[in-house]
Formats: sequence, structure tokens, C-alpha cells
Amino acid sequence: MSLLITSITITTPQLQDMLGFYRIIGFQFAAAKVDKGSEIYRAYHNGVEFSLYKTINAQKSQVPGLQLGFMVTDLDGTVEKLKAIPSVTCILDPTDMPDGKKAIMIDPDGHAIELSEKQ
Amino acid sequence: MSLLITSITITTPQLQDMLGFYRIIGFQFAAAKVDKGSEIYRAYHNGVEFSLYKTINAQKSQVPGLQLGFMVTDLDGTVEKLKAIPSVTCILDPTDMPDGKKAIMIDPDGHAIELSEKQ
Repeated sequence: MSLLITSITITTPQLQDMLGFYRIIGFQFAAAKVDKGSEIYRAYHNGVEFSLYKTINAQKSQVPGLQLGFMVTDLDGTVEKLKAIPSVTCILDPTDMPDGKKAIMIDPDGHAIELSEKQ
Repeated sequence: MSLLITSITITTPQLQDMLGFYRIIGFQFAAAKVDKGSEIYRAYHNGVEFSLYKTINAQKSQVPGLQLGFMVTDLDGTVEKLKAIPSVTCILDPTDMPDGKKAIMIDPDGHAIELSEKQ
């Protein structure tokens, strides 16, 4: 199977408490360089990037606080099929990025899903 | 590092749409045998069990729809340290199960976290 689970990101209004919890479990976080005002901490375990992202806007905390990333073999084809589901939204069409081709979809439950292409 | 990410479970009120979405991404789900009235579909990719769980009670859909599983080396010690965080709840103390020793904690954001012990 070529599918890979690549990332789990949790958005939280209480970053310090969440960092404390996951550090005890064993995650070794490093602060990620992000836009001014944002705070993201990342850790890597068995090939999965686990991130905690601080919610800046209280209103945004209503959005499901989970983003997942997957690596697939045929990004364009996968995105076309996903777009055919009525409850799915594409917020970024397949786009070449410095670190590879990516797309972002919103799944039927409202979670942001980042898809990247296996090279 | 001995920590392993072992599972991602998403609880959803719209299981069929979610199954359709994740099958297109490439997950090969199998129905899991569960209590009458429940529906769970599981898939395995790079060592991570990815499950979709149907929300039965509409009121329960208010609960954060994400559960994560991690395997740690010192389960008792980890649980004791986690319990010392005021915003954390332990809903299952370390208990011997047929498939190993497990505990369930609620993280500061309300996500259920299953911890198992590496053997």
C-alpha cells in the first residue's frame, strides 16, 4: 500500500497545558518557525509529524481542531474524485510547493486534510 | 525514541460520507466487530490504526471527535505524571487487558487518549 499517514495537527486554545500533557507521554517538541502571532510545536515519531497549534482567534476555536496529512501516489486523480463528493470542499487545488505537490481538502466533518504526492 | 503513535480514531455523525472520502484517499477499511448498534471501520497504514466510529447519540457529537493512541515504555509512571496536571482526567487506570496493559486519559482539550505499554 502506498498511502502514508504523514501528520496529525491539533489546534488548541490552551497550548501550554497540551504541550505539558504530550511531553509527559514522550513527545519531544521543537517550536516551528511560523508567522508572527502564531505558535506551533512539532514532534516526529514513527514517520508521523505531530503538531500542536495555538488557536489565536477565540471564534476559530469552533472549527474542528484536527488536521491530518496523507501522502498519496496520484494527487490530481485523488483530488478530482474527492471533489465529486457533495459534502467535500477543496480549499487548495494541487499546487507545486518548494517541498512537493500539495492540495488541501475539507472532509465531510470539516477537518482540513493535506494531501501530498509521493515522489 | 520509544514512543509510538498507534491509532487515530475519528467519531463522526456521517459515517458513509467519511468512509467515501477516506477510501478515495486510499484507506482500505474493514468493519470492526463491536457492540450492537455501533459501527467502526478500521484501516492500518505505516503502523497506525485509523478508525472511523459512527456517533450514535446526537448529543455525543458535541464531544471532540478525536481519539489518539500511543505506546509508551513506562505506563504507570506516565499516568501518574499526567494525573498531576489539573486539567487532565484519568478515566481508566493502568489495567491488564487481553492485548496488554492500557490506560485512558482525557487530555486538556477533552480528547480521549489511550496509552498502552510497550512490551
